Amino acid sequence: MHIAIIGAAGMIGRKLAERLVADGRLGHQEITQFSLLDVIQAQAPAGFKGPVDSRAADLSDPAASAALIDARPDVIFHLAAIVSGEAEADFDKGYRVNLDGTRYLFDAIRLASTDGYKPRVVFTSSIATFGAPLPDRIPDDFHTTPLTSYGTQKAICELLLSDYSRRGFFEGLAIRLPTVCIRPGKPNLAASGFFSSIVREPLIGQDAVLPVTDGVRHWHVSPRSAVGFLIHGATIDLAQVGPRRALSMPGVSVTVGEQIEALRRVAGDKAVALIKRVPNEDIQRMVNNWAPGFNAERATALGFTAEQTFDEIIRVHIEDELGGSLPVAS
Amino acid sequence: MHIAIIGAAGMIGRKLAERLVADGRLGHQEITQFSLLDVIQAQAPAGFKGPVDSRAADLSDPAASAALIDARPDVIFHLAAIVSGEAEADFDKGYRVNLDGTRYLFDAIRLASTDGYKPRVVFTSSIATFGAPLPDRIPDDFHTTPLTSYGTQKAICELLLSDYSRRGFFEGLAIRLPTVCIRPGKPNLAASGFFSSIVREPLIGQDAVLPVTDGVRHWHVSPRSAVGFLIHGATIDLAQVGPRRALSMPGVSVTVGEQIEALRRVAGDKAVALIKRVPNEDIQRMVNNWAPGFNAERATALGFTAEQTFDEIIRVHIEDELGGSLPVAS
Repeated sequence: MHIAIIGAAGMIGRKLAERLVADGRLGHQEITQFSLLDVIQAQAPAGFKGPVDSRAADLSDPAASAALIDARPDVIFHLAAIVSGEAEADFDKGYRVNLDGTRYLFDAIRLASTDGYKPRVVFTSSIATFGAPLPDRIPDDFHTTPLTSYGTQKAICELLLSDYSRRGFFEGLAIRLPTVCIRPGKPNLAASGFFSSIVREPLIGQDAVLPVTDGVRHWHVSPRSAVGFLIHGATIDLAQVGPRRALSMPGVSVTVGEQIEALRRVAGDKAVALIKRVPNEDIQRMVNNWAPGFNAERATALGFTAEQTFDEIIRVHIEDELGGSLPVAS
Repeated sequence: MHIAIIGAAGMIGRKLAERLVADGRLGHQEITQFSLLDVIQAQAPAGFKGPVDSRAADLSDPAASAALIDARPDVIFHLAAIVSGEAEADFDKGYRVNLDGTRYLFDAIRLASTDGYKPRVVFTSSIATFGAPLPDRIPDDFHTTPLTSYGTQKAICELLLSDYSRRGFFEGLAIRLPTVCIRPGKPNLAASGFFSSIVREPLIGQDAVLPVTDGVRHWHVSPRSAVGFLIHGATIDLAQVGPRRALSMPGVSVTVGEQIEALRRVAGDKAVALIKRVPNEDIQRMVNNWAPGFNAERATALGFTAEQTFDEIIRVHIEDELGGSLPVAS
């Protein structure tokens, strides 16, 4: 089985490739080949013996998708996107990459479908397809009314994916990822970064900044579960899914205050004391428009699983990123 | 005030122009100029004294929109589309006109917005943005899961319109038209044509074919009310509408059987006897996926109004198309 990952150099892309190599197979089929695409050249996953074609290319160039599809991958994970803040700051770039780029990919597959090619396409959509006012638990049949250009582009790609799937060009599934938390690595400038930072930094004895009020409720999943969604989405029987191909994933709905109490249970008061409150009105206003939680009834019935508590999300981070235990307290 | 109508040669486009000329104004402003665009050259509306620029052009050519926007119309009614059946039969043409064409228009306005230009854009969307399974009364917050490429293209354009409006490029509003019934003119090949035909033909003593069962429930509005929606949408205060710019319009939810009983009340048993039942499985299957009705609570609260009964829809047809009375029975 030949696996393509678009956005392979990103955090989820790298973890997905690692997991696929560790499993050795996807569903019942042995993985024999990788094609990796990103704006920077992604590293070949460690320990993989088969051929890996890793290319640096921009999805907004139709030739990038054409070359990828020429190699006829069996499963295509499309994770690449200009992130929310940048798509808002640069209107043209956001539409060019997130909308046109995805359409070039879908059309390259469509043109190849005339010779019987019909790959599985797993696309990462986002809870940013929803915009306030929102219920605390968004049902599966709730309308997508994004309040960012990024969310708009994701919602449009969901529609294209369902239509191209209905027409028989490929087997598409759009996975609406919760906010992935705790993101490993350094603090970044994303507006959502604090959700990870207020736990990640204190766990290793460093300060973190909290720019919003404790009452902010949001929807989280670990990087491990996010990868699990993609793999399940690549193997699931789509006859069970039917024509509505965008699925809101399960996750954990917690307030920032509840995140902090989970941190206290796992790492104690000293860790919590490292969180510095620095209110930021811009971030507060943005976050107020974000999804507080989902029912995710369809995805749950289809076998997608996530953590049940934020404590569990913290434990996954300690296992996957900190070698299984916290640094000894000073 | 300078009014542009894209799709000006179509049935709704012509009726809209006639109504605007009859009113002489839109809201509080006198209409001084028209720009008309369609794939065939639309006739200048009768009785209008000001300049009318009527052009035959294809919206899938970016130059068509660029030329239209160069003239800086104050209000743009965008009614043009490849219809459902053709967009399904010709994938490329449907996406090229309905999606790319609309985006060229929106982008032409966006580029002009840098000099302060900010027109009102009223876009006709469709209840085809919804696909089965559907509740009998679709609520305003129900998700759009189209089952045709046409419906997909309309749903995508709704998302673009809301985002371009949010970014301040224009003042957009998308009007989800019910099935317009009773369409004047000859029977056509549209799958939905029978909804009009089973009333229109018997009213003038001619046979009509009914291809589906009496229990089929669907959502209707008269051409007069459809034009009323567009005019109200062009003058409404968008601050009241907020960022969710796609509105499901009010209408009349009736079964085919109820349509027939309304015809009987208006025109008697003789008219009903002209309906010939010729079951068509393809049409039945398509129609089963269509919207049976809407709550339309938001649109109603915003002052959009339609007929209350199908009898009223028939009376509007007699007034507007048959000179106010039925032909004398033979």
